[in-house]
Amino acid sequence: IDETARRAAEDRQTQLTKPLGSLGRLETLATRLAGMQGTDKPRVDQVRISIFAGDHGVAAEGISRFPQSVTAEMVRNFARGGAGISVLARSIGATLEVINLGTVVELEPMSEVLDVRLGPGTANFVEGPAMDAHQLAKAMNAGRHSAERARLAGAQLYLAGEMGIGNTTAAAAVSCGLLERDPEVLAGPGTGLNQEGVRHKVEVLRRALHLHGAENLSDPVECLRRVGGFEIAAMSGAYLACAQMGMPILVDGFISSAAALATVRICPGARDWMLFAHASAEPGHRLLVGALAADPVLDLGMRLGEASGAATAVPLLRLACDIHCHMATFAEAQVTEAH
Amino acid sequence: IDETARRAAEDRQTQLTKPLGSLGRLETLATRLAGMQGTDKPRVDQVRISIFAGDHGVAAEGISRFPQSVTAEMVRNFARGGAGISVLARSIGATLEVINLGTVVELEPMSEVLDVRLGPGTANFVEGPAMDAHQLAKAMNAGRHSAERARLAGAQLYLAGEMGIGNTTAAAAVSCGLLERDPEVLAGPGTGLNQEGVRHKVEVLRRALHLHGAENLSDPVECLRRVGGFEIAAMSGAYLACAQMGMPILVDGFISSAAALATVRICPGARDWMLFAHASAEPGHRLLVGALAADPVLDLGMRLGEASGAATAVPLLRLACDIHCHMATFAEAQVTEAH
Repeated sequence: IDETARRAAEDRQTQLTKPLGSLGRLETLATRLAGMQGTDKPRVDQVRISIFAGDHGVAAEGISRFPQSVTAEMVRNFARGGAGISVLARSIGATLEVINLGTVVELEPMSEVLDVRLGPGTANFVEGPAMDAHQLAKAMNAGRHSAERARLAGAQLYLAGEMGIGNTTAAAAVSCGLLERDPEVLAGPGTGLNQEGVRHKVEVLRRALHLHGAENLSDPVECLRRVGGFEIAAMSGAYLACAQMGMPILVDGFISSAAALATVRICPGARDWMLFAHASAEPGHRLLVGALAADPVLDLGMRLGEASGAATAVPLLRLACDIHCHMATFAEAQVTEAH
Repeated sequence: IDETARRAAEDRQTQLTKPLGSLGRLETLATRLAGMQGTDKPRVDQVRISIFAGDHGVAAEGISRFPQSVTAEMVRNFARGGAGISVLARSIGATLEVINLGTVVELEPMSEVLDVRLGPGTANFVEGPAMDAHQLAKAMNAGRHSAERARLAGAQLYLAGEMGIGNTTAAAAVSCGLLERDPEVLAGPGTGLNQEGVRHKVEVLRRALHLHGAENLSDPVECLRRVGGFEIAAMSGAYLACAQMGMPILVDGFISSAAALATVRICPGARDWMLFAHASAEPGHRLLVGALAADPVLDLGMRLGEASGAATAVPLLRLACDIHCHMATFAEAQVTEAH
């Protein structure tokens, strides 16, 4: 983080024709971006969204209302431009790429989808590790490569999103492991489980935590391998690479925040490169937000994933930059300052 | 409100390729706009922002950190494109008009500013009514005409904003009158008063409320005349006209909400046409939000006025419409629905 640029941006904010602080988060978002980008005129015109898709063996435990075939069906929907994130990416003028890390249902080759299949989904983590060390490394590398492509394409802001039936269960497992909390406080309805469904999800998670052991799960890399998902590991790899390259990250909701927490446990300095887009309606997100000392920009009751909450916050970051770069100062506009 | 169109939009939301409800407020904003616009494909591409400026006699009581000359200086800043709302309007592609209802400092003619001067600001409402009945009618008509111009220009969404040194004091007075509450709970720091300054503002407001009497101030029209401001009355006139013409309104923060409350007290049905953009950092806004049963979209700690909070929320309304109109349905995308 370039503290000189951040302070210069803060100084500029004091000179703009408004009472100091009166634009609230729009001021602090601009100054944080200034520090990340090393300029007093930050911009987020070029935005990259990478969606990682993968299936989850734990779906066999009946923890989702949707069949696993939906993961592959949604990858097709991303490719054809019909999904929520497809529409949002077009609307905000962001570049969208889709990476298939392994669906249960085989997918035909599609020019819009990068095929990095690591298997037909992860293994059921109630019975053993979700993946082996080789798969974990490949998943994290897939994320790293996506961040590197974003950088090469000139992205000023990186968004990761996910699709994977069962992945609120995997994200809850990762969160329970890293936060050493019971699934009761981290399992939620996901795509729409009723109370009974959530109770069952909690039981499934407790079995998994018991099998893998708290000590193993307190190690972030081992936690991702044992109870994570291909897409969660990929997002963590992407976030690590963004932080290393100095590219600002806009974190989405529950799944993304679990990946962000693993990232910060691997490399605490990565936190400096993260902005948090929204408070998810998935109840466990609150705990992740607390653990990450995050202050999400939006609270719209969203819980779709696919980076949809992050994409929704992009226009606000752009307005923050526009205001910061283009408002007149008191001197320029000959406006009297406060006494 | 076209309930048939609203229900058709709600029905469409159930068919889009996402768990129902998973886009939270983006879903309900789209369906409310559908009801207002009488279509199942709502749009807010054409946005009109009208900024009403006026000075306040009560500024003589020392209730602001800025001198009154700033109102005129900021009108020039609006005209030259350097103010916060100037930048925001350009960024979101909205049409901005500025209406001068009467500043203490005379302004030269400017092609970007509509001159509807009703006097050199209002009278000091601690000593008598802020305006006479003729001025009130002219101010409300100036608002109505702005809404009519917006309609003629094809606006799909109307935003009102204000500029006037001292107008958080006038807005607090109007709110106290209509809500029958003590200034303690409605007066706040405005552009940046310290604790002592707020205490003085409360005392000034108590003197005004005592002078005018609770009964007079419970009548919304008489309340606007006695303790309002030219710009607050104009916003109320604009909101009334929008509701009568069936044009959706996006209400800004504290001052705008005081005008919105007066509007709803004059014509309760006007509430149906209002969306609320953001929760202002001005503490009294919370009470207005409650009284209006509002559920602001954003909470970014903003308190600038000038319709800045409303303009910031416009991209989110557009994303809500884009998702609603352009996402694929389960049938179109051949995605399996939840069991």
